[in-house]
Amino acid sequence: MKATCWHGTGDVRVDDVPEPQLLKPTDALVRMTKAGICGSDLHFLNNGEDLEMVPGTRVGHEFVGVVEAVGADVRGPRVGDRVVAPFVFSDGTCFYCRRGLHSSCEHGGIFGTPFWGPHAGGEIEGGQSEFIRVPEADGTLVVIPESLADGTRDLDVLPLGDVFSTGYHGVVNARVRPGDTVAILGDGAVGICAVQAATLFGAATIIHVGHHDDRLAVGTSSGATHVINAKREDAVEAIQNLTHGRGADAVVETISNNDSLTRALTAVRDGGAVSVLGMSHFFGPVDQPYSATFMRNISIHPGVCPSRAYMDSLMHLLEAGKIRPGVVFTHDLPLTDAARGYTMMDRREEGSIKVAVST
Amino acid sequence: MKATCWHGTGDVRVDDVPEPQLLKPTDALVRMTKAGICGSDLHFLNNGEDLEMVPGTRVGHEFVGVVEAVGADVRGPRVGDRVVAPFVFSDGTCFYCRRGLHSSCEHGGIFGTPFWGPHAGGEIEGGQSEFIRVPEADGTLVVIPESLADGTRDLDVLPLGDVFSTGYHGVVNARVRPGDTVAILGDGAVGICAVQAATLFGAATIIHVGHHDDRLAVGTSSGATHVINAKREDAVEAIQNLTHGRGADAVVETISNNDSLTRALTAVRDGGAVSVLGMSHFFGPVDQPYSATFMRNISIHPGVCPSRAYMDSLMHLLEAGKIRPGVVFTHDLPLTDAARGYTMMDRREEGSIKVAVST
Repeated sequence: MKATCWHGTGDVRVDDVPEPQLLKPTDALVRMTKAGICGSDLHFLNNGEDLEMVPGTRVGHEFVGVVEAVGADVRGPRVGDRVVAPFVFSDGTCFYCRRGLHSSCEHGGIFGTPFWGPHAGGEIEGGQSEFIRVPEADGTLVVIPESLADGTRDLDVLPLGDVFSTGYHGVVNARVRPGDTVAILGDGAVGICAVQAATLFGAATIIHVGHHDDRLAVGTSSGATHVINAKREDAVEAIQNLTHGRGADAVVETISNNDSLTRALTAVRDGGAVSVLGMSHFFGPVDQPYSATFMRNISIHPGVCPSRAYMDSLMHLLEAGKIRPGVVFTHDLPLTDAARGYTMMDRREEGSIKVAVST
Repeated sequence: MKATCWHGTGDVRVDDVPEPQLLKPTDALVRMTKAGICGSDLHFLNNGEDLEMVPGTRVGHEFVGVVEAVGADVRGPRVGDRVVAPFVFSDGTCFYCRRGLHSSCEHGGIFGTPFWGPHAGGEIEGGQSEFIRVPEADGTLVVIPESLADGTRDLDVLPLGDVFSTGYHGVVNARVRPGDTVAILGDGAVGICAVQAATLFGAATIIHVGHHDDRLAVGTSSGATHVINAKREDAVEAIQNLTHGRGADAVVETISNNDSLTRALTAVRDGGAVSVLGMSHFFGPVDQPYSATFMRNISIHPGVCPSRAYMDSLMHLLEAGKIRPGVVFTHDLPLTDAARGYTMMDRREEGSIKVAVST
């Protein structure tokens, strides 16, 4: 089968590899129909050596597809069901899953990428492959409800497993409440999804900060009440001007390099919350003294998203027409063009925000 | 009158200074009966130059006393009322006070010490003085209820304005809920108060970590279910042994140097909260990468305490006999011996935990 594999910095290829098989009675086998390329895939693309990735590692962790086979112990998904996976597999029953923190599942892991490692035994396929063995299928997979299961809504369903739930997690962590002013830093897919999520929590003012007018236009159509192109104006000053000089009640920060974190901590009001969703702090020094936040009682919430915890609710919201996750996709390429998709996203070519690959 | 003044590193003296006068119609004049020496006073004692403190600065920010005079606009405290002050004065009506964040009051400041500066106009006396002009008296002062106002309970009332409310704030920020396991790092007065506060929120297991058996004994009598003397055992390992290897649901960290913060972030479970109450991060480098907390969804809550927000509730708890703040005081000296009190606390002599000075 075809599978997208990382071979070195900047080098992703679609290789021919053996098809996966069910290895455990709790596994399911899914035929991927559509997979996403994620901003974090770009981190893996460009920093694989730092992360000690082995050349040939299968990549991708966002996919929808059709169940091809299930192990003897799988009670939920049936063969033929259309399903969507969160980017982390999880058993759904452990200490952490019971508390809604599926990203810390004691028997879980991540598809493809080296984070969490393949705890489930045997090799874990990446999501950008024709077939994927899904460990802990009952805990992991979400069966797409009938109204969304004809295949035409895959681009709306796909983000629920990663970028949309991540934006939502950021808003949850930033404790956004009705009437709040929230600033979303970053106009990538996660930032746009966070804008939509902020509308769900009743934010009165949603300030979307980015560097690209076309992306910020998607922010506006997603519910942002104000957009700031930080190439043209000082974002912190603009946020303060909109908030009587105090700063936003909550800041959702999706980049997480030193500059962006500094901006977030400066743009939030005293007593506010900053949620940290980006991964750049893994790849460069971050200097954020506690002293800057102590006197102002600013709480900081770094956190990878426990997507599975949110996906049932998000699916209801999608069925109800309350969210439009699919707006983040600008391109949909054949799986065999995955490398082109990576390049396009990495270089921000052709107005790309997020690229899907399809079988 | 007598007033405790800072003159240089390690040099505090009780000087003769002019008595304060009412300067604004919102002022009150309080005759101090008992004042506390705070752990933060020791930071000022030893780091005054770094903080650009001016020699002669009046110090102290914890006091109870009797109202001697009030300005024309003061509607609450009356002459003769026995009152307790929070360590930050605040108007009680601004944007932040309305949200319970009196430490960020837009017209507030701190008694004596250079933090926040004297915004109220004129010089602000320290709390370790015979008389103190209290700006924003209506927003600031708490009238001690009759059952606690005969003077014999001053040592129980005094901590409500600083160390007890600070410990309580730490527990609030760490989101302690019934059934939780909470670790309190530090066996100073704030740590002991945090132990008592954790009992109020229904923590099932309260692990008190310190370096002094005598202080940890106060922790035990305050409600700690386990004590760890970190001189004799590894605190993180001991906490993990008590929590199935996962770590505590919440950690209240009262020291906040690099070692203690590292310990806190290591001793908390995934998805847990760390509240940061100590001030050591102001005086030494702290290296706490976000990466350490991101994959584990650990939220961090640095925060100076908005004591005034909690004092009404804490006074009810004190009247009801549910808290015993006074246990933190080991010594009560005459005001004229304040310098000796500082030395005693700074060097941890004579089993001192916290020292009061009285007129």
